[in-house]
Amino acid sequence: QGTRDHPPAQAALRDRLLSAVVSCFKRHGAAAIDTPVLELREMLIGKYGEGTKLIYELKDQGGELLALRYDLTVPFARYLAMNKITNIKRYHIAKVYRRDNPAMTRGRYREFYQCDFDIAGQFDPMIPDAECLKIVHEILSDLQLGDFLIKVNDRRILNGVFAVCGVPESKFITACSTVDKLDKMPWEEVRSEMVGEKGLSPEAADRIGEYVQLHGGLDLIERLLQDPKLSQNKLAKEGLGDMKLLFEYLTLFGITGKISFDLSLARGLDYYTGVIFEAVLLQQENEHVEEPVSVGSVAGGGRYGGLVGMFDPKGRKVPCVGVSIGIERIFSILERRLEASGEKLRTTETQVLVATPQKHLLAARLKLISELWDAGIKAEMLYRKDPKLLKQLQYCENTGIPLAAIVGEQELADGVVKLRDVATREEVRM
Amino acid sequence: QGTRDHPPAQAALRDRLLSAVVSCFKRHGAAAIDTPVLELREMLIGKYGEGTKLIYELKDQGGELLALRYDLTVPFARYLAMNKITNIKRYHIAKVYRRDNPAMTRGRYREFYQCDFDIAGQFDPMIPDAECLKIVHEILSDLQLGDFLIKVNDRRILNGVFAVCGVPESKFITACSTVDKLDKMPWEEVRSEMVGEKGLSPEAADRIGEYVQLHGGLDLIERLLQDPKLSQNKLAKEGLGDMKLLFEYLTLFGITGKISFDLSLARGLDYYTGVIFEAVLLQQENEHVEEPVSVGSVAGGGRYGGLVGMFDPKGRKVPCVGVSIGIERIFSILERRLEASGEKLRTTETQVLVATPQKHLLAARLKLISELWDAGIKAEMLYRKDPKLLKQLQYCENTGIPLAAIVGEQELADGVVKLRDVATREEVRM
Repeated sequence: QGTRDHPPAQAALRDRLLSAVVSCFKRHGAAAIDTPVLELREMLIGKYGEGTKLIYELKDQGGELLALRYDLTVPFARYLAMNKITNIKRYHIAKVYRRDNPAMTRGRYREFYQCDFDIAGQFDPMIPDAECLKIVHEILSDLQLGDFLIKVNDRRILNGVFAVCGVPESKFITACSTVDKLDKMPWEEVRSEMVGEKGLSPEAADRIGEYVQLHGGLDLIERLLQDPKLSQNKLAKEGLGDMKLLFEYLTLFGITGKISFDLSLARGLDYYTGVIFEAVLLQQENEHVEEPVSVGSVAGGGRYGGLVGMFDPKGRKVPCVGVSIGIERIFSILERRLEASGEKLRTTETQVLVATPQKHLLAARLKLISELWDAGIKAEMLYRKDPKLLKQLQYCENTGIPLAAIVGEQELADGVVKLRDVATREEVRM
Repeated sequence: QGTRDHPPAQAALRDRLLSAVVSCFKRHGAAAIDTPVLELREMLIGKYGEGTKLIYELKDQGGELLALRYDLTVPFARYLAMNKITNIKRYHIAKVYRRDNPAMTRGRYREFYQCDFDIAGQFDPMIPDAECLKIVHEILSDLQLGDFLIKVNDRRILNGVFAVCGVPESKFITACSTVDKLDKMPWEEVRSEMVGEKGLSPEAADRIGEYVQLHGGLDLIERLLQDPKLSQNKLAKEGLGDMKLLFEYLTLFGITGKISFDLSLARGLDYYTGVIFEAVLLQQENEHVEEPVSVGSVAGGGRYGGLVGMFDPKGRKVPCVGVSIGIERIFSILERRLEASGEKLRTTETQVLVATPQKHLLAARLKLISELWDAGIKAEMLYRKDPKLLKQLQYCENTGIPLAAIVGEQELADGVVKLRDVATREEVRM
């Protein structure tokens, strides 16, 4: 349940999609790493907030207690700490596992791919963070998914907001996860969850509401830097200063047109400590709607300063910032689009079918195809002693093989091969 | 335990190795498929003989009872039966899991990659089987692993041998697994295991010994086809007839020089029903040894006629033949060889580092690198506001970046970029 086989057509589409992502990651100088699907159970516990209960555990068959990785970020942090690496730019594309309620049509599975790019190391502020946003921009543009928006916020700003609104520090994380629902439910409902389930005071909730419904650009950052309450909060001030710097860099990258500083963005995971961001596709079907409606997140990430330190015996921290591309959701969009277009993706790359027009020529086919393979040419033949020529040509048409190399009795006698263009039926002897 | 992280240098080597394998599989017209790492536990039980006890099971957290896949062949057969596919040529490269005693230096892990190519469908005898052997031959030649030998046998011949030697049918599989040890221990030990643990009669064991120590080529096949006892056994006769056909096809492929018909080859897995094969590398270090010594299996496979039927509610069979490349062992050989050579593999593909020679030029670097990325050029910069030029050039040398694109105050004023060849120190303004 919640998993699926990928038949050849899906695997081919996925390959195409993943290579677009990989080539962007490589364009930005990342190296690949790989970590096991299995992690020690104790490494994963306490890293994912409410997600912890969705971790798949292995049966105790003796030996270590194991679990399946829940994401690629925690194993990355574990890897850095174990190997005392303080400086790396890596990508990792692999499957992760969550015992979640699957929603397959929306691209939500229990086994799914994550495509992560992270920069670890102590650097000058916002330079790697800006690159992560540039990467999201490049990938979403490359894949031609339609219009999109990248929402940006900072955990320090959010925590500052909570502080100046009178929320006790112990409730920051839980308040965060409620604010995060603002893209799916109206403020009224979020407010009532805050007051009801989360136990905030109605006044605090109202004050929070005034902030978290704001979104904009540099102008909004400037305004909040002047905000009498917020500007008194150390964390918020730091966050806003960095946000201003980030926007400067994004202006140089020429991508601010698709970036929105959005105070409602909170992101669920516990480990973020600075900039956070999330990219959403904007609905285009209905052009009469005044404000474009989001159809869901396709990328997200942020800065996590404390995670590596949790795995280091001496608590040594390695600041990291990273981005995860929501490949499954993008895949289901591209799949629907491909279906709608009626286009048929080839599932193989075969260039030529080796065919014979008469009986008793299997040996000739085997000899020729062997020569082609040895020359690096992608070649197939039917696994029959005496297939009909029509059947062989139909196989080309069905699977998209562009050429047939035909050896008949005459060609054998003349020491030639007849090369046929399957689509045009043109033939040359060579 | 028994798993490992792949740091960038290893991941790069693995990538190189896997792409050689994938391009061979594609050259033979295979499509990619993917199946989940998780399978229903009941699907895996009873398919692997003694291997069953090595299956990783998941904890019962409610819902289905799951296990991690043990190989890619059983999931492939399950996939064919579930989707009623009777005809496909596919490859699958993915990790599998076995609770085995790890022997990391010899490339034996609990989590490891398998690279499988299989042909499913009802075809004329030995044509797909011959292609599988051709693939092994191509891959091992491509990778330049040194001299190798592909041993071939047929389960039908082995069963025929057991029958004519007086082994009861119920003991065929267990006798098989003992014969399979002949490449690791001398005949005397194998014999005593047969008589002792496996309960065969000493006479039967001696008769088996006369057959299973034979190996050769077409001549041996012809001799056994004339063998007074074996030629009376239906299974053995079928197997020997097909083996003769196989050698004919392999002769047309020009690869019989590296093929040995070896009656001691048995292979452990229960599901094989016809041709089986295994490739071993031959030790070259000591040239004085008369017969080359095998250093372990690097590929194996065979024909399995009944496996798909075990997953079909009506038991419908789909004959399959396939090959699995022992990528982990090959990887550890290549890794050792790379280490010995002192060659350093680049872990990134960055073409150019964007650098500045003076302070206060971060904006210029950000603008230029953004243009390069947008033009599809693989570019990096240091994440510092004002890095020293020397540090930037050292980064190029350390990571193998061949070019530096330098923008200084003069270049900015002139509207040019200085492109520097890191190795030769040649510079051009452009």
